[in-house]
Amino acid sequence: MGKKTKHKSSLEEVKGIKQPESIQKIKLNRSKLPSTKAFVENILKGDITYLSRAITLVESTNTKHQKRASEILSASLPYANNSIRIGITGVPGVGKSTFIEVFGKHLTSLGKKVAVLAVDPSSSINSGSILGDKTRMPSLVKDENAFIRPSPSGESLGGVAQKTREAIILCEAAGYDTIIIETVGVGQSEIAVHSMVDFFLLLKLAGAGDELQGIKRGIIEMADAIVINKADGDNIKRANLAKIEFTRALHLYPLKESIWQPKVTTCSAIENTEIDSVWEIIEAYINLTKKNSYFEKQRNEQNKFWVLETINEKLKNQFYTNPIVKKELINVLNKVQQHELSSFEAAKKVLDVYHKK
Amino acid sequence: MGKKTKHKSSLEEVKGIKQPESIQKIKLNRSKLPSTKAFVENILKGDITYLSRAITLVESTNTKHQKRASEILSASLPYANNSIRIGITGVPGVGKSTFIEVFGKHLTSLGKKVAVLAVDPSSSINSGSILGDKTRMPSLVKDENAFIRPSPSGESLGGVAQKTREAIILCEAAGYDTIIIETVGVGQSEIAVHSMVDFFLLLKLAGAGDELQGIKRGIIEMADAIVINKADGDNIKRANLAKIEFTRALHLYPLKESIWQPKVTTCSAIENTEIDSVWEIIEAYINLTKKNSYFEKQRNEQNKFWVLETINEKLKNQFYTNPIVKKELINVLNKVQQHELSSFEAAKKVLDVYHKK
Repeated sequence: MGKKTKHKSSLEEVKGIKQPESIQKIKLNRSKLPSTKAFVENILKGDITYLSRAITLVESTNTKHQKRASEILSASLPYANNSIRIGITGVPGVGKSTFIEVFGKHLTSLGKKVAVLAVDPSSSINSGSILGDKTRMPSLVKDENAFIRPSPSGESLGGVAQKTREAIILCEAAGYDTIIIETVGVGQSEIAVHSMVDFFLLLKLAGAGDELQGIKRGIIEMADAIVINKADGDNIKRANLAKIEFTRALHLYPLKESIWQPKVTTCSAIENTEIDSVWEIIEAYINLTKKNSYFEKQRNEQNKFWVLETINEKLKNQFYTNPIVKKELINVLNKVQQHELSSFEAAKKVLDVYHKK
Repeated sequence: MGKKTKHKSSLEEVKGIKQPESIQKIKLNRSKLPSTKAFVENILKGDITYLSRAITLVESTNTKHQKRASEILSASLPYANNSIRIGITGVPGVGKSTFIEVFGKHLTSLGKKVAVLAVDPSSSINSGSILGDKTRMPSLVKDENAFIRPSPSGESLGGVAQKTREAIILCEAAGYDTIIIETVGVGQSEIAVHSMVDFFLLLKLAGAGDELQGIKRGIIEMADAIVINKADGDNIKRANLAKIEFTRALHLYPLKESIWQPKVTTCSAIENTEIDSVWEIIEAYINLTKKNSYFEKQRNEQNKFWVLETINEKLKNQFYTNPIVKKELINVLNKVQQHELSSFEAAKKVLDVYHKK
């Protein structure tokens, strides 16, 4: 075998890196990053390429990218906040992708510009995410008034949530007036999404009477609407029964601060029926809450929540990743389990060890 | 008018203090504190005076008292943990005191030793608390196998919860095998109580169909049983309807980790009917969860929870009471509200300011 003439790819030329990277990252590395001004100007014009590239910068862990992302976000912020943000959750198999596709198409048919984002902390650079999967929304992907982005990957829900909130800012600056944020019921992700949207929609299937099986506690109470999908064919009767059951259950709850009485409706995403009813429900909610100022109040509370949440996560992270703390914590938790230490004494020991360092 | 001969009370003799103090505190200040050994020996014998004095030490903010309390708690800990802990919540007016009285009497009639504690962060040294009010449980107060203690006063729920958990240890060491912890639906106190008991009971009244009015979201899902009180006289029919309604609602929830299916029952505290049914429900729960190990698992999880909760509260307290932090936080929250700063940037600013100090 003769000597192989090594053909260096442009990527390798730039960084001497051999492992695979996403095409978008290659493009960012290869060419000089456009200026912040260029980014913002083009985002404001609704340029999808610049929008995508900006979101990729936001998601990047590279310090230079982070710095640029920060500048772009600051410059975009005054143009953000002018949209309706809708969270959609439901167990796998309930038909979220199909629903979002027809719902998104309905919205664009009404003249709206729709962005679809996702929060899925289980996604990673290697395995991607099942949410925001463009292959499952083939029609919406082709719609020039829709923008679909998979979940950022991340080590923690906090990190993923932060990047999603920053992506929302960029999408709003780019003129998207309706932002859909999809999530699955994984860990705390529904609570995180609920804390970043105006309207929280729970997508359900009609069961065999076991209506709330599989739904984590508290999610029902978070919902502003429950939409029972697959109300088609033989399933229509069951879907209507489920609707009655859920409506009755929702009426047992105390009044929400928004004054809004959560609604239950059926639909069939695959047959594209009653999708307009879903939007009418959301519109009614928006009208009510803008009129009674709850909309604005909730946005302010959410902003404040995320400031404090970010601070608290960083404080805890700094503490719990400290090796001395890790060691002492395991030690005291053992003693607590053996009833040798009270919880309070255990906490004191760990804090003392941290402060002595 | 001649000169008044001032009669100095013993209190004034000791401290030159003129303002009123509780009798118990006077006794502690005046006499030398018994030794830790004396405390523990007498508590283990079930001596109520020593038990009360020990709990007062636990509640005291005096450093010397705190130190002694800590020693007593450490020595008592091996003798604790052998009880059933029951949390009872319900809105004011539902009849908690009457219920706890007849329920407590029923338990002592079965040969149990019952301690009644309370978590009420709104109580203070001056105004006391409406919970654990002995005047509302006149029969139970006289029962030699019952011990009733009002809520500790405290500046924060965390502080009150901690003192209550420490009182539980002492009561258990004193031989009380059933600990009732009463709370009202004030802020997060129900969540705190739920995190320190084995069984969580929600006391309700039959309404006019508006069954869950006034109950905060999430409480229904926490309940292991819902007891509908005042099922007497003209109210019996409504109580039974409410029972059906709640039973149906509870069946819509996903299975609890304990496997236990929450029960709904009616009773009349004032007529002392069906109180034994309530205890039978709790017994069934204890049997089930001890058999399937959930009881032990939950106790371990709660202990761990309180270690981390205590640490996190102290970390946050240290941060948020810092004057530089307080100032910067107000500053950035304003900017966030004006859409001049993102939540994330705001959090970074505050953390930077804290770390620079």
